[in-house]
Amino acid sequence: MTPLVASVDLGGTNIACAVADRSGHVLVEDKRPTESHAGPSGVLERIAALVRDLTQRAGGTLSAVGMGVPGLVDVQTGVTKCLPNLTTQWREVPAGETLCQSLGCPVFLLNDVRMATLGELKFGHGREVQSMAFYAVGTGIGGGLVLDGRLRLGSLGAAGELGHQTIVPDGPLCGCGNHGCLETLASGPALAAEGVRLARSGLAPKLYDRVAGDLNAISAQTMGDAAKQGDEHVRQVIERAAYYLGLAIVNTMVTVHPELVVLGGGVSEMGDLWIDAVRRTVAARLKMIPPASFRIERSQLGDRAGTLGGIALAIQGGV
Amino acid sequence: MTPLVASVDLGGTNIACAVADRSGHVLVEDKRPTESHAGPSGVLERIAALVRDLTQRAGGTLSAVGMGVPGLVDVQTGVTKCLPNLTTQWREVPAGETLCQSLGCPVFLLNDVRMATLGELKFGHGREVQSMAFYAVGTGIGGGLVLDGRLRLGSLGAAGELGHQTIVPDGPLCGCGNHGCLETLASGPALAAEGVRLARSGLAPKLYDRVAGDLNAISAQTMGDAAKQGDEHVRQVIERAAYYLGLAIVNTMVTVHPELVVLGGGVSEMGDLWIDAVRRTVAARLKMIPPASFRIERSQLGDRAGTLGGIALAIQGGV
Repeated sequence: MTPLVASVDLGGTNIACAVADRSGHVLVEDKRPTESHAGPSGVLERIAALVRDLTQRAGGTLSAVGMGVPGLVDVQTGVTKCLPNLTTQWREVPAGETLCQSLGCPVFLLNDVRMATLGELKFGHGREVQSMAFYAVGTGIGGGLVLDGRLRLGSLGAAGELGHQTIVPDGPLCGCGNHGCLETLASGPALAAEGVRLARSGLAPKLYDRVAGDLNAISAQTMGDAAKQGDEHVRQVIERAAYYLGLAIVNTMVTVHPELVVLGGGVSEMGDLWIDAVRRTVAARLKMIPPASFRIERSQLGDRAGTLGGIALAIQGGV
Repeated sequence: MTPLVASVDLGGTNIACAVADRSGHVLVEDKRPTESHAGPSGVLERIAALVRDLTQRAGGTLSAVGMGVPGLVDVQTGVTKCLPNLTTQWREVPAGETLCQSLGCPVFLLNDVRMATLGELKFGHGREVQSMAFYAVGTGIGGGLVLDGRLRLGSLGAAGELGHQTIVPDGPLCGCGNHGCLETLASGPALAAEGVRLARSGLAPKLYDRVAGDLNAISAQTMGDAAKQGDEHVRQVIERAAYYLGLAIVNTMVTVHPELVVLGGGVSEMGDLWIDAVRRTVAARLKMIPPASFRIERSQLGDRAGTLGGIALAIQGGV
């Protein structure tokens, strides 16, 4: 039987799973609703069932699983610490051990964005470098840091939380309890909030038309479209969010000076307006480090980074 | 003959030199004016003469030199890149090789604050940890980062420039060309500027008395004294500067989560008012990382960190 590895990405809405051979080629993949109301044991049973199903479809023997979770986890023991987008029942759940017993192979846990960082490192732009910062700009802003070719996690797996740098000291309240984190200024919801304000105030006619008056449909995507069609205020809002991200990248640079910054997540797919503004900010504000010594690139993997990171995590047997 | 090592700290005003045995015990030390108007070759000759003099006084054979410079240097080649506090002639000077030929032993160059970080790591609080961030809060704010027991320098030795994180996006102009860097908000001159304003406005009577009306004498030290004596506005200014430093430490924490943050430099000697405010800010603003997982300490070495770092650099033969 072919030895296989599985990748699991546990999200608040869906469980995404992929099974690959040990050279990293994905053979089958699928997703199921998380149904987090079932609590940790119910969700872990659903994960195990999905992994078994896909392994059977791929036709082989499972040798390891890499699993990303939306929060903090003890990467040594596989015990979850705090998964704010699921339920509070997920504190101190030995998820790694439970799944290991149920699947009969080692299961390695990691924060989901750090897992995506591993995907970028092993299968994306990161293949060419030894040091990299990854910013995943979506509903939240997650991150990951690679130094000397390895993920940098810190003792609690909390290193690389680049979206929780304080960028505006007296800025908006963040879900983490701090104020003015990058996430409050440059995430999808931060952009959309400004889009809603503009649309309601009659300052974004193209955006209003684009969403046919439905404010629920305002997103990074529709705002990017509206800016392209000529909504000047929407363009300014996008550039402002990109500017804050640029300042965060300046901080990352002076702190660890990675060779590469990769920008992923839904917001990063918005088009050149956004990434150009990020790059312009870094060029204008970072004077002590020569621009030729690093690159800022959009993810090549898009939403595949997490899946591929899980495969890499399983193949290399943890971090 | 006893094998000896030397430490050189090249500053804008003075050259400080110490000679030690290979177990790190300092035998003799001395300083001379830099006389930077003499240009790189003149200054390097003065350094060589001072090192030879102290080696002779200590009575032994020089086996290696560790030298700190105020700016960026290629740590592999010992070529200086940019020393803003000396003269522009210091771009691309092969200082390491020149001294090596003149002294007959290897000479290892490093940014001065990174050298002090090495001192803190080998002889200070850092002896107990594998990861550490060092903030040297003085005329400027320098820094250094230790991960996995080693200085983290980046390809150009620019990693660890923690004083050049952007803390207030539209803040004051910094010497580095950026705006709102920590250095513009929390350094000695940033504190003193506010002290001068208060004293001139009649808002700091104790400070005014403390310096006998001479604004030149306003410093972190005299401001700390005035705050202790009851100048409420001066106290607020000190706490505000400490608050900005606390925010920078939050950023360092979410980025790399070191076990230890060491605060050094002249400002750090101001007393508990300042460090208490730093710690309070970090406790109030950093919610995602448990407080028990790191410490914030004042340097044990004070202004000895650089000297001892140079000795460590020489003993370990570079970074």
